[in-house]
Amino acid sequence: MTSREQTMKNIPLLLIGCGGVGRQLLQHIVSCRSIHAKQKLHLRVVGICDSKMLLVSLDVFTMELDDAFLLEVCQAKLKGSSLLTLSNSGQHQVFSNPESMGKIIHIAALLARSTGLIVIDCSASSDTTGVLTRVAELGCCVVMANKKPLSSSMEDYEKLLACPRRIRHESTVGAGLPVIASLNRMLSSGDLVHRIVGSLSGTLGFVMSEVEDGKPFSQVVRSAKNLGYTEPDPRDDLSGMDVARKALILARLLGRRIVLNDIKVESLYPEEMGPNTMSIASFLENGLPLLDKGIQERVEKASSNGNVLRYVCLIDELRCEVGIQELPKNTPLGRLRGSDNVLEISSRCYNQQPLVIQGAGAGNDTTAAGVLADVFDVQDLFH
Amino acid sequence: MTSREQTMKNIPLLLIGCGGVGRQLLQHIVSCRSIHAKQKLHLRVVGICDSKMLLVSLDVFTMELDDAFLLEVCQAKLKGSSLLTLSNSGQHQVFSNPESMGKIIHIAALLARSTGLIVIDCSASSDTTGVLTRVAELGCCVVMANKKPLSSSMEDYEKLLACPRRIRHESTVGAGLPVIASLNRMLSSGDLVHRIVGSLSGTLGFVMSEVEDGKPFSQVVRSAKNLGYTEPDPRDDLSGMDVARKALILARLLGRRIVLNDIKVESLYPEEMGPNTMSIASFLENGLPLLDKGIQERVEKASSNGNVLRYVCLIDELRCEVGIQELPKNTPLGRLRGSDNVLEISSRCYNQQPLVIQGAGAGNDTTAAGVLADVFDVQDLFH
Repeated sequence: MTSREQTMKNIPLLLIGCGGVGRQLLQHIVSCRSIHAKQKLHLRVVGICDSKMLLVSLDVFTMELDDAFLLEVCQAKLKGSSLLTLSNSGQHQVFSNPESMGKIIHIAALLARSTGLIVIDCSASSDTTGVLTRVAELGCCVVMANKKPLSSSMEDYEKLLACPRRIRHESTVGAGLPVIASLNRMLSSGDLVHRIVGSLSGTLGFVMSEVEDGKPFSQVVRSAKNLGYTEPDPRDDLSGMDVARKALILARLLGRRIVLNDIKVESLYPEEMGPNTMSIASFLENGLPLLDKGIQERVEKASSNGNVLRYVCLIDELRCEVGIQELPKNTPLGRLRGSDNVLEISSRCYNQQPLVIQGAGAGNDTTAAGVLADVFDVQDLFH
Repeated sequence: MTSREQTMKNIPLLLIGCGGVGRQLLQHIVSCRSIHAKQKLHLRVVGICDSKMLLVSLDVFTMELDDAFLLEVCQAKLKGSSLLTLSNSGQHQVFSNPESMGKIIHIAALLARSTGLIVIDCSASSDTTGVLTRVAELGCCVVMANKKPLSSSMEDYEKLLACPRRIRHESTVGAGLPVIASLNRMLSSGDLVHRIVGSLSGTLGFVMSEVEDGKPFSQVVRSAKNLGYTEPDPRDDLSGMDVARKALILARLLGRRIVLNDIKVESLYPEEMGPNTMSIASFLENGLPLLDKGIQERVEKASSNGNVLRYVCLIDELRCEVGIQELPKNTPLGRLRGSDNVLEISSRCYNQQPLVIQGAGAGNDTTAAGVLADVFDVQDLFH
């Protein structure tokens, strides 16, 4: 036993999902080595999984994928290569799908009885719910940036959250903004949350503050796309479904037993301009401009009331909805500019004025930092 | 063993300090019983200590001060009675000072080896540092609303924080606002904090936003006192020393090895109007009005630059200072009205726009809720 092993808490991690966030997380883990060492913590990456395969250290009890290899993974994935290009270095075993998920559960079962294991989901897949639930049942911890496992059926949700302290998911809402951590602190100390209003899409935040300045909606959406703020198909943002998923996660955190379909979602384009009937190019060129007048009229009406329009989620005792709201200019939400996220939380303790949390709500760096902060918090559960 | 004991995690607590926050905490603990039971947690209060004595359950391994008794303590303390009036009910042992602190260490030593113990400091005393350090060394956890143990010498601070995960102190800065928790998340995930600017005194926040409206400083301070916003002697707020203590706690969290004396503190009254030379009445009547003109001129000068004055703490790579700053109107700090606290944190992840946390930064309810949230977080360390 080396001296590090004698004094360090050695926590195994397994990462599912090697996209932008997953790669950034691996880099953060490597660059935080000395910070974690000061806290007597060593994060030992025992496995990495993408949609095609799983790489696992040769002995999950004692060995890890070393830092040089983790950085090599980041580089390879950055170039768009699969993990396969790295699979011959001899320091790890390789499992292809569909074998991967079974193997992860096997590793979790082995490690749950000794050091514990933190399984991290940085994928965007809805197929991970089963494996995450199983590893949590086995006594492992789960950290998610992936919203899907938390926004499926109520039955799946309750199974996954059976031991809520083992499950962390800060980066599913507002990237690394301390939203979930703060809400959990309020809930665990009995502060009754009455109302959450939030702008949880940097894209739609940008769009709404630009149209407020009088720019046509179509032009704003096109520049958002050119700036890389939107998904490849901007309708994925404009549909509001991504915000609805975040609203669902927040509402369930407050104890609401609802599903995605229960949320009233306002789409910023009509059904007849949807992806099934219109190509992206045609939507941008022919569809979008038809929406300018309607949005402009709403902006002007709001303005004549001294208000502004924001695309928000609104959760209170009665409602859980997502869409455009007319809000007073003179509030954190009303003043929001650009792509920051902002959340106003009203509760017993924050009743005169809401608790406001505001800042960058997107980006791989901050999203991965939120995941790593969750990892650091949840490792307290292991000894 | 009852069925609750079989399934519940049973965590002993010992409370030092039975003022407004301590009493409110006991009430929160009682009213959160069902919330905590859902998370399979039972908080077992084994001891309560005020400046005169310590009450301890008859057997710290198995017995607790029951809820009816805790509420009785709140009532008695509310009426200004000491714990002594309750000391004959026969369900607990009584220890008077100076015996109390030794007894707390004895209990910590006993429980550290079995269930663990969380010692909570809701006092305002600087005499608790030793006992808190000792119980942490023994393996217990410490939760503080008391700023004093964190603002003494660097040597004491480092001893107390030797195992930082065992020490939580959200409610030392901004009451229950999730400031320390959020900063700790940033630090543990390697997000480098460049700069913190914050309005951390509800009293001075109120004063600065009122003088901005053209009201004379003396009048504003007097109404703040009448509204109950200030300490009995308003100079305790105006000196800036309370803000300086909070700034010190934040700076040390960022790794700065400094003491209170290293912080440049601007007092809002001159030395010759201090408590040693002027009574409270004389300060309010004769001293304060002499300060009106100076403040008014500064307000007007700032206003002519399109700025406002705020009494803030400012921490960056070079500075740690507390005083009036001229700030742009169009920032969360510049827009601050009334007694809310607000913190702007700039870091690698929050570089374009700061992370902003804003809300009520005072009040027994939110301060005690912050303490209880810390208790809930830190109990993860015990099994």
